[in-house]
Amino acid sequence: MTGRLMTARFTRLAASLPATVPFVGPETQERERGRPFAARIGANENIFGPSPKAVAAMRAVAGDVWMYGDPLAYDLRHALADHLSIPPEAIMIGEGIDGLLGLTVRLFVEPGDAVVTSAGAYPTFNYHVAGFAGRLECVPYRDDAEDPAALAEAARTQDARLVYLANPDNPMGSWNDAGVVTAMLERLPDGTLLCLDEAYLEFAPEGTAPPIDVSDTRLLRFRTFSKAYGLAGLRVGYVIGHPDLIAGFDRIRNHFGVNRMAQAAALAALAVREYLGQVLRRVDESRERIAGLAAENGLATLPSATNFVAIDCGADGDFARAVLAALIARDVFVRMPGVAPMDRCIRVSAGTEREMEILARTLPEALAEARERA
Amino acid sequence: MTGRLMTARFTRLAASLPATVPFVGPETQERERGRPFAARIGANENIFGPSPKAVAAMRAVAGDVWMYGDPLAYDLRHALADHLSIPPEAIMIGEGIDGLLGLTVRLFVEPGDAVVTSAGAYPTFNYHVAGFAGRLECVPYRDDAEDPAALAEAARTQDARLVYLANPDNPMGSWNDAGVVTAMLERLPDGTLLCLDEAYLEFAPEGTAPPIDVSDTRLLRFRTFSKAYGLAGLRVGYVIGHPDLIAGFDRIRNHFGVNRMAQAAALAALAVREYLGQVLRRVDESRERIAGLAAENGLATLPSATNFVAIDCGADGDFARAVLAALIARDVFVRMPGVAPMDRCIRVSAGTEREMEILARTLPEALAEARERA
Repeated sequence: MTGRLMTARFTRLAASLPATVPFVGPETQERERGRPFAARIGANENIFGPSPKAVAAMRAVAGDVWMYGDPLAYDLRHALADHLSIPPEAIMIGEGIDGLLGLTVRLFVEPGDAVVTSAGAYPTFNYHVAGFAGRLECVPYRDDAEDPAALAEAARTQDARLVYLANPDNPMGSWNDAGVVTAMLERLPDGTLLCLDEAYLEFAPEGTAPPIDVSDTRLLRFRTFSKAYGLAGLRVGYVIGHPDLIAGFDRIRNHFGVNRMAQAAALAALAVREYLGQVLRRVDESRERIAGLAAENGLATLPSATNFVAIDCGADGDFARAVLAALIARDVFVRMPGVAPMDRCIRVSAGTEREMEILARTLPEALAEARERA
Repeated sequence: MTGRLMTARFTRLAASLPATVPFVGPETQERERGRPFAARIGANENIFGPSPKAVAAMRAVAGDVWMYGDPLAYDLRHALADHLSIPPEAIMIGEGIDGLLGLTVRLFVEPGDAVVTSAGAYPTFNYHVAGFAGRLECVPYRDDAEDPAALAEAARTQDARLVYLANPDNPMGSWNDAGVVTAMLERLPDGTLLCLDEAYLEFAPEGTAPPIDVSDTRLLRFRTFSKAYGLAGLRVGYVIGHPDLIAGFDRIRNHFGVNRMAQAAALAALAVREYLGQVLRRVDESRERIAGLAAENGLATLPSATNFVAIDCGADGDFARAVLAALIARDVFVRMPGVAPMDRCIRVSAGTEREMEILARTLPEALAEARERA
């Protein structure tokens, strides 16, 4: 490499990409702070954990991981197909929604193609669009929710290849009714594919998800075992769509990428419907609790169809960032939206009684500290 | 999509890619056959399994997988850095070597760029090159081994961006001494980066691997917990190189892709050096056993620096394919090289006494059946 810049080895695209990451992990923050968090309620993880049967399945297969996982994830794919009453060819299992979103951008976006999302929506999607040289066009949120009509309109004016909609939404916890999503689909131009991220769907009210129709070539739907099923650390999500679209993933995916443990655990988790019901009840209780704590401190919360709650700190982004910093200084891991006006909020994931007690103690202190600084 | 071909949605590149997969999994074969294999010695998995401490680590963290894994894999990266006496910035952890090879092609290969490998070498590398529109140029094996001098020469004449060398080699089990690899590096043109796949290194004789020098910008070295450490099903590998090259992966990787279980298990596996010694001894015994069984059947085997042995079936590819088919019909999962003249061999992974007894019983039958058909 004498006399050449190191980056000369990279492709022009790779050389042009920023080295930023979509999210800093809480472990990194803990190392920088020099001590662990007391409450981990910042990444919308499911602290109530996977079902005991999923844990038992993991322990049972621990000795078998010398074998590669089934590259077709046949058992899991068929179990999901049964569960959803769709053909297995309409499902592809992947390394979490994050991995599947990356493959989706790679399959559908040429360099320079327009992709539409909402300003302040899921940053990992944007990261993948940048990574394949897509041209990202952002539409504002409307009343703290993603705006399907505006997204469809932008898709039309930009001639977008993809448009991203999370329903329910992260980071606000808001949602659109199924009919609104269906109306959005009807407005999309022929060349636009809807990426409908339903990671939080299990926490949402009935009527949030349009019925699944795998003959529809206008959308792909992304779901996961990371949230309601409590398997975030294992990396297993899936995408639902027309079999001709789903077959595309086989052209570019890492075939042995979905690990054996994840396949076993997801299969076990899917079989235990009662446990999921318990988790949903506990999440619901925690959402109420967070709203109650906020109210005790004079703050409003946003309605949530997810396992987290956006607390409106009642002022601007700087104030909310000060509250967030004061909570983190008190060993409470939380995150917040990055874009105004949503950044007047902090985002708190559902927790157990333990985390709620820590929040009850630290939130008034954090607010007081932020007000002092303001 | 009225009136449009479904594939109109895909990028031109994605639409042009074949839907073939690098490997069919043994589970798929079992489903097609309608019964399980009796001996799974075809995918170079480590049947002796992960260390009991790694299994204990997996069981211990099973209940914690509701948390995402550390996106920096800080603990594992630092443990490897200590182990290898290199800075952690010279290591990137990834979803197996397969995943890291895909990222590597994406980082360094523009559409139409030449990439050099050996005809018959690792197909997953070729799959990734095709997936990013690289132009693959193949060099023949020489005496059943990859030919570093010819690879370097082809890299020069083709002005290749990448050249792939597995040392030890899969599927033949052959290897080149460290000095040969170093000489190859010296012959590479400035613009070529060597992808040195050392997946099987732990099984190889001393003197196979050149010393690690992370100031050298001419190569990336790929290693894994899938083989000697017995964690294939968990998907954890790593790439070693100059920190400026390694930092490139942060621009495009799936940051939360390395699962929490894999990180915990690999960390525990790395700490138990004695167990690795036991595995290597058992692999060595099994290699001898396979050679002995082959000899009893009048067949030669190739020297192996891996956890598998290539048995020379003594005739052409058609004959070896008939032997392979007859073994599979007898519930023995094995694979074989795809390119002549190496396809005169079948490839048998090390097994326990149980698998060796099955092989001892079925190999003479399979040979007899193949000879009858010939």
